[in-house]
Amino acid sequence: MARLDWIGVWCCEGALGVWLMAADGSVLDRHVLQEAAQPVTPDDVAARLLPLVAGMSLADRIDPVPVIACGLEGAAPLRTVPCAAPGIAEAARVPTPDPRLDLRVLPGLAQRQPRAVMRGGETVIAGLFAVAPGFDGVLCLCGAASTVWARLSAGEVVSFATFMTGEMLEMLGTDMNQQNDDRDAFTAALAEAMSRPAGLASMLSAVRAEADLDALAPAAVQARISGALIGAELAAARPYWLGQTVVVAGEGALAEAYGAALADQGAAPRSARSQDLALAGLTAARRQLASPEV
Amino acid sequence: MARLDWIGVWCCEGALGVWLMAADGSVLDRHVLQEAAQPVTPDDVAARLLPLVAGMSLADRIDPVPVIACGLEGAAPLRTVPCAAPGIAEAARVPTPDPRLDLRVLPGLAQRQPRAVMRGGETVIAGLFAVAPGFDGVLCLCGAASTVWARLSAGEVVSFATFMTGEMLEMLGTDMNQQNDDRDAFTAALAEAMSRPAGLASMLSAVRAEADLDALAPAAVQARISGALIGAELAAARPYWLGQTVVVAGEGALAEAYGAALADQGAAPRSARSQDLALAGLTAARRQLASPEV
Repeated sequence: MARLDWIGVWCCEGALGVWLMAADGSVLDRHVLQEAAQPVTPDDVAARLLPLVAGMSLADRIDPVPVIACGLEGAAPLRTVPCAAPGIAEAARVPTPDPRLDLRVLPGLAQRQPRAVMRGGETVIAGLFAVAPGFDGVLCLCGAASTVWARLSAGEVVSFATFMTGEMLEMLGTDMNQQNDDRDAFTAALAEAMSRPAGLASMLSAVRAEADLDALAPAAVQARISGALIGAELAAARPYWLGQTVVVAGEGALAEAYGAALADQGAAPRSARSQDLALAGLTAARRQLASPEV
Repeated sequence: MARLDWIGVWCCEGALGVWLMAADGSVLDRHVLQEAAQPVTPDDVAARLLPLVAGMSLADRIDPVPVIACGLEGAAPLRTVPCAAPGIAEAARVPTPDPRLDLRVLPGLAQRQPRAVMRGGETVIAGLFAVAPGFDGVLCLCGAASTVWARLSAGEVVSFATFMTGEMLEMLGTDMNQQNDDRDAFTAALAEAMSRPAGLASMLSAVRAEADLDALAPAAVQARISGALIGAELAAARPYWLGQTVVVAGEGALAEAYGAALADQGAAPRSARSQDLALAGLTAARRQLASPEV
């Protein structure tokens, strides 16, 4: 088995990814969870990593293993946009309970007006710039908790907005991990919410009434709730996606729903897995470490 | 102690009221809870009532005690608007485990288009008509779970709409039972949401970001979340309240917030306690029982 060279940790909007990496860029082991209980502090990260690396021969290493993490609160001061996606130079070195782990925490992003904060998404953006240098357009990063829209240009994050749509879907009992097979109901609710976004609370109540009175099928209920919430979000986020190159990054049915919704609006979004972009961003930070001793 | 004549039970949008009543209309005992675990079936009602009446001498009664309940699912077929608020003639007699209780369940209301359902609110409306015969205007019934807007005219419920604003406030961790003392923050968020209701999810995210980045005080967080949600609702419900006589029925800080919001919009809402109107509606149904044996 190849030797462990570094560990990447991505905490972002309800997703948690941990990758044990070899020096050649191959993945020795990966643990990616959606809607995970997230580590929020460096100590949480260390506690989560130690069982994963317990079976690995860290003892034959002279130097500690670099752990590059993002999405943690408080460890590194947030960077204010417009700015480049943070790299290893902006990371904070944080002591851990185990001296074999050399933890570096990448900072998140803040925006002054409108006030907004992003933790973990900045590393997906770094990954997008790593795989598509010179990308000019918009990233729609749909996570299990929130969706982040970020305008990217000239290697920088220009501005961003977040919508707690995923969290609202979950609060309304909509499980986007279930296959959503009522496409017509989704499209109709999406169109209604986009044309009359102020009616969202009323639409959601109407879906409940139909479920109650008309025995609306669970698939239709889910399709209409997700269509309504995503439609209201797209209406509010229109300045982000209208006429732009859009990359939708996410996982599974939720990302598919965003992609379908944007396609319905005449946008032609490209899609990517958010965990792949996150690993690309963490890998870029690892490469910025000139040597393991830095 | 006066003799128990009848019992009123009101289940509505997160509120539960039980009144033990004397024949002269005086209240022997009352139990009113907000955000209560609600009885939803007649058996639930009986189970909840039996401990309350255990200490009362029901044994000296020849006839069972009339129990007039509303807001229960499935017991009585919903009436479709436009129609009068249901009275005792529309109630279903439902057997209970205890033959000393003569349970009559008032039906709720349904609307065909847009699809909507109301359970418990119809009895508040009956109470409003009882205390204000000939009322012509709009009832805004703000409950812990949902808010119901109902157009009332010529003794009938013309149409209604429900908004799950209370439930969303609760899901967002906003406790409206806490005193909301940041009126400026509430008013600003209300105005912003009313002018740009589509931006609701974005506004809520911004409040979180400010709480995170700027240590926004909990009172201000609560005021802005409630202002945003109520503002989005008022924007969508504008056809209900604009230029109308509005009665806001509710309890405590939530009802005050609706009243303040409508006042900010130039409406001059009257206010009433929803539990008082509910009891008036139940009492009207009791009077419709020609004799205890009916």
